Amino acid sequence: MKEPISGLSLEDKEYYMREAIRLAEKAGAIEEVPIGAVIVLDGEIIGRGYNLREHTQQASSHAEMTAIEEACQRVGSWRLEGAQLFVTLEPCPMCSGAMLLSRVDEVYYGAADPKGGTAGTLMNLLDDERFNHTAYVESGILGEVCGQLLTDFFRGLREKKKELKRQKKD
Amino acid sequence: MKEPISGLSLEDKEYYMREAIRLAEKAGAIEEVPIGAVIVLDGEIIGRGYNLREHTQQASSHAEMTAIEEACQRVGSWRLEGAQLFVTLEPCPMCSGAMLLSRVDEVYYGAADPKGGTAGTLMNLLDDERFNHTAYVESGILGEVCGQLLTDFFRGLREKKKELKRQKKD
Repeated sequence: MKEPISGLSLEDKEYYMREAIRLAEKAGAIEEVPIGAVIVLDGEIIGRGYNLREHTQQASSHAEMTAIEEACQRVGSWRLEGAQLFVTLEPCPMCSGAMLLSRVDEVYYGAADPKGGTAGTLMNLLDDERFNHTAYVESGILGEVCGQLLTDFFRGLREKKKELKRQKKD
Repeated sequence: MKEPISGLSLEDKEYYMREAIRLAEKAGAIEEVPIGAVIVLDGEIIGRGYNLREHTQQASSHAEMTAIEEACQRVGSWRLEGAQLFVTLEPCPMCSGAMLLSRVDEVYYGAADPKGGTAGTLMNLLDDERFNHTAYVESGILGEVCGQLLTDFFRGLREKKKELKRQKKD
Protein backbone atom coordinates (compact mmCIF):
# COMPACT_ATOMS: atom_id res chain seq x y z
CA MET A 1 0.00 0.00 0.00
CA LYS A 2 0.96 3.61 -0.64
CA GLU A 3 2.83 5.24 2.27
CA PRO A 4 1.36 8.34 3.94
CA ILE A 5 3.27 11.51 3.12
CA SER A 6 1.51 13.98 5.41
CA GLY A 7 3.36 12.90 8.55
CA LEU A 8 0.27 13.47 10.71
CA SER A 9 0.61 12.44 14.38
CA LEU A 10 -2.09 10.39 16.13
CA GLU A 11 -3.04 13.61 17.91
CA ASP A 12 -3.53 15.36 14.53
CA LYS A 13 -5.60 12.47 13.20
CA GLU A 14 -7.84 12.47 16.26
CA TYR A 15 -8.22 16.24 16.04
CA TYR A 16 -9.56 16.05 12.48
CA MET A 17 -11.67 12.99 13.25
CA ARG A 18 -13.29 14.88 16.13
CA GLU A 19 -14.39 17.51 13.62
CA ALA A 20 -15.84 14.74 11.42
CA ILE A 21 -17.64 13.39 14.53
CA ARG A 22 -19.06 16.85 15.26
CA LEU A 23 -20.46 16.90 11.70
CA ALA A 24 -21.86 13.36 12.14
CA GLU A 25 -23.66 14.60 15.25
CA LYS A 26 -25.20 17.43 13.22
CA ALA A 27 -26.62 14.78 10.87
CA GLY A 28 -27.91 12.71 13.80
CA ALA A 29 -29.59 15.77 15.31
CA ILE A 30 -31.83 16.06 12.23
CA GLU A 31 -32.54 12.32 12.08
CA GLU A 32 -30.04 11.49 9.36
CA VAL A 33 -27.70 8.51 9.85
CA PRO A 34 -24.79 10.17 11.72
CA ILE A 35 -21.80 10.16 9.37
CA GLY A 36 -19.43 13.09 8.94
CA ALA A 37 -16.31 13.85 6.90
CA VAL A 38 -13.63 16.51 6.52
CA ILE A 39 -10.86 17.09 3.99
CA VAL A 40 -7.53 18.53 5.09
CA LEU A 41 -4.88 20.17 2.93
CA ASP A 42 -1.68 21.64 4.37
CA GLY A 43 -3.10 21.47 7.89
CA GLU A 44 -6.31 23.29 7.01
CA ILE A 45 -9.82 21.87 6.76
CA ILE A 46 -10.95 22.73 3.22
CA GLY A 47 -14.10 20.61 2.97
CA ARG A 48 -16.80 19.47 5.38
CA GLY A 49 -19.83 17.25 4.89
CA TYR A 50 -22.42 15.15 6.64
CA ASN A 51 -25.00 12.69 5.48
CA LEU A 52 -28.17 14.40 4.22
CA ARG A 53 -29.82 11.69 2.15
CA GLU A 54 -33.29 11.98 3.67
CA HIS A 55 -33.38 15.78 3.63
CA THR A 56 -32.16 16.09 0.04
CA GLN A 57 -33.70 12.81 -1.20
CA GLN A 58 -30.52 12.42 -3.22
CA ALA A 59 -28.75 9.04 -3.27
CA SER A 60 -25.41 10.83 -3.54
CA SER A 61 -25.75 13.05 -0.44
CA HIS A 62 -23.07 11.23 1.52
CA ALA A 63 -20.75 13.08 3.93
CA GLU A 64 -17.65 12.39 1.81
CA MET A 65 -19.23 13.61 -1.45
CA THR A 66 -20.21 16.94 0.09
CA ALA A 67 -16.76 17.32 1.64
CA ILE A 68 -15.06 16.56 -1.70
CA GLU A 69 -17.34 18.99 -3.56
CA GLU A 70 -16.64 21.76 -1.05
CA ALA A 71 -12.89 21.08 -1.22
CA CYS A 72 -12.84 21.11 -5.06
CA GLN A 73 -14.74 24.39 -5.03
CA ARG A 74 -12.35 25.82 -2.44
CA VAL A 75 -9.17 24.96 -4.36
CA GLY A 76 -10.80 25.61 -7.76
CA SER A 77 -9.76 22.22 -9.09
CA TRP A 78 -11.05 18.65 -9.31
CA ARG A 79 -7.60 17.53 -8.17
CA LEU A 80 -7.09 17.26 -4.42
CA GLU A 81 -3.57 15.84 -4.55
CA GLY A 82 -1.82 15.93 -1.19
CA ALA A 83 -5.12 16.03 0.71
CA GLN A 84 -6.27 13.81 3.58
CA LEU A 85 -9.87 12.73 4.04
CA PHE A 86 -11.32 11.85 7.46
CA VAL A 87 -14.66 10.08 7.71
CA THR A 88 -16.43 8.50 10.68
CA LEU A 89 -17.54 5.37 8.75
CA GLU A 90 -15.66 3.32 6.16
CA PRO A 91 -16.58 4.62 2.68
CA CYS A 92 -18.98 2.90 0.26
CA PRO A 93 -18.09 2.23 -3.44
CA MET A 94 -19.42 5.63 -4.58
CA CYS A 95 -17.38 7.59 -2.05
CA SER A 96 -14.28 5.40 -2.48
CA GLY A 97 -14.58 6.06 -6.21
CA ALA A 98 -14.90 9.82 -5.70
CA MET A 99 -11.73 9.72 -3.58
CA LEU A 100 -9.86 8.03 -6.44
CA LEU A 101 -11.21 10.54 -8.98
CA SER A 102 -10.27 13.54 -6.84
CA ARG A 103 -6.81 12.03 -6.15
CA VAL A 104 -7.08 12.30 -2.35
CA ASP A 105 -3.83 10.81 -1.01
CA GLU A 106 -4.75 9.61 2.47
CA VAL A 107 -8.03 8.28 3.86
CA TYR A 108 -8.61 7.87 7.61
CA TYR A 109 -11.83 6.33 8.85
CA GLY A 110 -13.35 5.56 12.24
CA ALA A 111 -15.66 2.54 12.23
CA ALA A 112 -15.51 -0.29 9.70
CA ASP A 113 -18.65 -1.05 7.65
CA PRO A 114 -19.10 -4.82 7.40
CA LYS A 115 -22.12 -4.39 5.09
CA GLY A 116 -20.71 -2.08 2.45
CA GLY A 117 -17.21 -0.82 3.28
CA THR A 118 -14.85 -0.80 0.30
CA ALA A 119 -11.73 0.61 1.92
CA GLY A 120 -10.58 -2.68 3.40
CA THR A 121 -13.62 -4.62 4.62
CA LEU A 122 -15.45 -6.09 1.58
CA MET A 123 -12.61 -5.04 -0.73
CA ASN A 124 -10.17 -2.13 -0.98
CA LEU A 125 -10.95 0.04 -3.99
CA LEU A 126 -8.41 2.59 -2.72
CA ASP A 127 -5.53 0.16 -3.05
CA ASP A 128 -6.14 -1.41 -6.44
CA GLU A 129 -3.24 -0.71 -8.80
CA ARG A 130 -5.48 -1.16 -11.85
CA PHE A 131 -7.06 2.25 -11.22
CA ASN A 132 -5.07 5.36 -12.12
CA HIS A 133 -4.80 6.44 -8.49
CA THR A 134 -4.40 4.73 -5.11
CA ALA A 135 -4.61 6.14 -1.58
CA TYR A 136 -3.14 5.25 1.80
CA VAL A 137 -5.88 3.96 4.13
CA GLU A 138 -5.89 3.85 7.94
CA SER A 139 -8.86 2.60 9.98
CA GLY A 140 -9.89 2.80 13.62
CA ILE A 141 -9.25 6.51 14.26
CA LEU A 142 -11.56 7.11 17.27
CA GLY A 143 -13.31 4.03 15.90
CA GLU A 144 -15.29 3.25 19.06
CA VAL A 145 -16.74 6.76 19.33
CA CYS A 146 -17.67 6.72 15.61
CA GLY A 147 -19.25 3.27 15.88
CA GLN A 148 -21.12 4.13 19.09
CA LEU A 149 -22.73 7.15 17.38
CA LEU A 150 -24.25 4.80 14.79
CA THR A 151 -25.25 2.13 17.34
CA ASP A 152 -27.03 4.75 19.49
CA PHE A 153 -28.74 6.25 16.45
CA PHE A 154 -30.18 2.93 15.26
CA ARG A 155 -31.19 1.91 18.80
CA GLY A 156 -33.04 5.24 19.09
CA LEU A 157 -34.82 4.57 15.79
CA ARG A 158 -35.95 1.11 16.92
CA GLU A 159 -37.25 2.50 20.22
CA LYS A 160 -39.19 5.23 18.41
CA LYS A 161 -40.79 2.63 16.13
CA LYS A 162 -41.77 0.48 19.14
CA GLU A 163 -43.26 3.52 20.88
CA LEU A 164 -45.30 4.38 17.77
CA LYS A 165 -46.64 0.80 17.59
CA ARG A 166 -47.58 0.97 21.28
CA GLN A 167 -49.41 4.26 20.76
CA LYS A 168 -51.33 2.82 17.80
CA LYS A 169 -52.49 -0.14 19.94
CA ASP A 170 -53.81 2.13 22.72
CA MET B 1 -26.99 -12.04 -12.37
CA LYS B 2 -30.32 -10.30 -11.81
CA GLU B 3 -32.76 -10.63 -14.70
CA PRO B 4 -34.04 -7.49 -16.47
CA ILE B 5 -37.66 -6.74 -15.69
CA SER B 6 -38.29 -3.85 -18.06
CA GLY B 7 -38.71 -6.01 -21.16
CA LEU B 8 -37.02 -3.38 -23.36
CA SER B 9 -36.46 -4.40 -26.99
CA LEU B 10 -33.12 -3.83 -28.73
CA GLU B 11 -34.82 -0.97 -30.57
CA ASP B 12 -35.82 0.62 -27.25
CA LYS B 13 -32.30 0.23 -25.87
CA GLU B 14 -30.75 1.82 -28.96
CA TYR B 15 -33.29 4.64 -28.82
CA TYR B 16 -32.27 5.58 -25.27
CA MET B 17 -28.57 5.06 -26.00
CA ARG B 18 -28.86 7.46 -28.92
CA GLU B 19 -30.09 10.10 -26.48
CA ALA B 20 -27.06 9.35 -24.23
CA ILE B 21 -24.83 9.70 -27.33
CA ARG B 22 -26.44 13.06 -28.14
CA LEU B 23 -25.55 14.21 -24.60
CA ALA B 24 -21.99 12.85 -24.97
CA GLU B 25 -21.66 14.95 -28.13
CA LYS B 26 -22.73 18.04 -26.16
CA ALA B 27 -19.84 17.34 -23.77
CA GLY B 28 -17.41 16.85 -26.66
CA ALA B 29 -18.53 20.12 -28.26
CA ILE B 30 -17.27 22.02 -25.20
CA GLU B 31 -14.03 20.02 -24.98
CA GLU B 32 -15.12 17.67 -22.25
CA VAL B 33 -14.50 13.92 -22.63
CA PRO B 34 -17.67 12.87 -24.51
CA ILE B 35 -19.68 10.70 -22.14
CA GLY B 36 -23.46 10.94 -21.74
CA ALA B 37 -26.14 9.19 -19.70
CA VAL B 38 -29.91 9.01 -19.35
CA ILE B 39 -32.24 7.41 -16.81
CA VAL B 40 -35.52 5.91 -17.90
CA LEU B 41 -38.56 5.09 -15.76
CA ASP B 42 -41.77 3.69 -17.20
CA GLY B 43 -40.66 4.56 -20.72
CA GLU B 44 -39.87 8.19 -19.91
CA ILE B 45 -36.44 9.81 -19.66
CA ILE B 46 -36.35 11.29 -16.14
CA GLY B 47 -32.64 12.20 -15.89
CA ARG B 48 -29.97 13.38 -18.30
CA GLY B 49 -26.28 14.11 -17.78
CA TYR B 50 -22.99 14.58 -19.52
CA ASN B 51 -19.43 14.86 -18.33
CA LEU B 52 -18.59 18.36 -17.13
CA ARG B 53 -15.48 17.80 -15.03
CA GLU B 54 -13.35 20.53 -16.59
CA HIS B 55 -16.09 23.15 -16.63
CA THR B 56 -17.17 22.54 -13.03
CA GLN B 57 -13.72 21.49 -11.75
CA GLN B 58 -15.60 18.92 -9.69
CA ALA B 59 -14.30 15.33 -9.55
CA SER B 60 -17.88 14.08 -9.28
CA SER B 61 -19.25 15.77 -12.44
CA HIS B 62 -19.71 12.51 -14.35
CA ALA B 63 -22.62 12.01 -16.75
CA GLU B 64 -24.21 9.31 -14.60
CA MET B 65 -24.07 11.36 -11.37
CA THR B 66 -25.85 14.29 -12.99
CA ALA B 67 -28.46 11.97 -14.51
CA ILE B 68 -29.06 10.27 -11.15
CA GLU B 69 -29.35 13.63 -9.36
CA GLU B 70 -31.83 14.93 -11.91
CA ALA B 71 -33.86 11.70 -11.70
CA CYS B 72 -33.94 11.76 -7.87
CA GLN B 73 -35.09 15.37 -7.97
CA ARG B 74 -37.72 14.53 -10.57
CA VAL B 75 -39.26 11.64 -8.60
CA GLY B 76 -38.68 13.35 -5.23
CA SER B 77 -36.89 10.33 -3.83
CA TRP B 78 -33.38 8.88 -3.56
CA ARG B 79 -34.88 5.55 -4.65
CA LEU B 80 -34.99 4.91 -8.38
CA GLU B 81 -36.32 1.36 -8.18
CA GLY B 82 -37.52 0.06 -11.54
CA ALA B 83 -35.35 2.53 -13.46
CA GLN B 84 -32.92 1.81 -16.31
CA LEU B 85 -29.69 3.73 -16.78
CA PHE B 86 -28.03 4.15 -20.18
CA VAL B 87 -24.46 5.41 -20.42
CA THR B 88 -22.09 5.59 -23.37
CA LEU B 89 -19.04 4.34 -21.39
CA GLU B 90 -18.83 1.63 -18.75
CA PRO B 91 -19.19 3.25 -15.30
CA CYS B 92 -16.32 3.90 -12.86
CA PRO B 93 -16.48 2.87 -9.16
CA MET B 94 -18.09 6.17 -8.10
CA CYS B 95 -20.89 5.94 -10.65
CA SER B 96 -21.37 2.18 -10.15
CA GLY B 97 -21.69 2.93 -6.42
CA ALA B 98 -24.23 5.69 -7.02
CA MET B 99 -26.29 3.24 -9.12
CA LEU B 100 -26.32 0.78 -6.21
CA LEU B 101 -27.29 3.51 -3.73
CA SER B 102 -30.12 4.81 -5.93
CA ARG B 103 -31.33 1.23 -6.55
CA VAL B 104 -31.32 1.53 -10.35
CA ASP B 105 -32.40 -1.89 -11.63
CA GLU B 106 -30.86 -2.11 -15.10
CA VAL B 107 -27.66 -0.63 -16.49
CA TYR B 108 -26.93 -0.54 -20.23
CA TYR B 109 -23.60 0.76 -21.47
CA GLY B 110 -21.98 1.30 -24.83
CA ALA B 111 -18.19 0.97 -24.80
CA ALA B 112 -16.23 -1.00 -22.20
CA ASP B 113 -13.59 0.86 -20.17
CA PRO B 114 -10.49 -1.35 -19.85
CA LYS B 115 -8.79 1.21 -17.56
CA GLY B 116 -11.47 1.79 -14.96
CA GLY B 117 -14.76 0.05 -15.78
CA THR B 118 -16.40 -1.64 -12.80
CA ALA B 119 -19.54 -3.02 -14.42
CA GLY B 120 -17.84 -6.12 -15.81
CA THR B 121 -14.37 -5.21 -17.03
CA LEU B 122 -12.08 -4.80 -13.98
CA MET B 123 -14.79 -6.12 -11.67
CA ASN B 124 -18.57 -5.97 -11.46
CA LEU B 125 -19.68 -3.85 -8.51
CA LEU B 126 -23.26 -4.03 -9.80
CA ASP B 127 -23.42 -7.79 -9.40
CA ASP B 128 -21.88 -8.34 -5.97
CA GLU B 129 -24.38 -9.94 -3.61
CA ARG B 130 -22.56 -8.55 -0.56
CA PHE B 131 -24.00 -5.10 -1.28
CA ASN B 132 -27.65 -4.45 -0.43
CA HIS B 133 -28.59 -3.99 -4.08
CA THR B 134 -27.57 -5.50 -7.42
CA ALA B 135 -28.43 -4.47 -10.97
CA TYR B 136 -28.75 -6.22 -14.32
CA VAL B 137 -25.91 -5.13 -16.64
CA GLU B 138 -25.79 -5.26 -20.45
CA SER B 139 -22.84 -3.96 -22.48
CA GLY B 140 -22.27 -3.14 -26.13
CA ILE B 141 -25.44 -1.12 -26.85
CA LEU B 142 -24.28 0.93 -29.90
CA GLY B 143 -20.84 0.17 -28.46
CA GLU B 144 -18.90 1.04 -31.62
CA VAL B 145 -20.51 4.47 -31.97
CA CYS B 146 -19.89 5.21 -28.27
CA GLY B 147 -16.27 4.06 -28.47
CA GLN B 148 -15.61 5.94 -31.72
CA LEU B 149 -16.77 9.19 -30.08
CA LEU B 150 -14.04 8.77 -27.46
CA THR B 151 -11.37 7.67 -29.97
CA ASP B 152 -12.08 10.69 -32.17
CA PHE B 153 -12.05 13.05 -29.19
CA PHE B 154 -8.65 11.88 -27.93
CA ARG B 155 -7.20 11.86 -31.45
CA GLY B 156 -8.38 15.47 -31.83
CA LEU B 157 -6.72 16.39 -28.53
CA ARG B 158 -3.40 14.86 -29.61
CA GLU B 159 -3.54 16.69 -32.92
CA LYS B 160 -4.25 19.99 -31.20
CA LYS B 161 -1.27 19.47 -28.89
CA LYS B 162 0.99 18.68 -31.87
CA GLU B 163 -0.23 21.78 -33.67
CA LEU B 164 0.48 23.94 -30.60
CA LYS B 165 4.02 22.52 -30.37
CA ARG B 166 4.59 23.22 -34.07
CA GLN B 167 3.37 26.82 -33.65
CA LYS B 168 5.72 27.33 -30.70
CA LYS B 169 8.69 26.13 -32.76
CA ASP B 170 7.93 28.53 -35.63
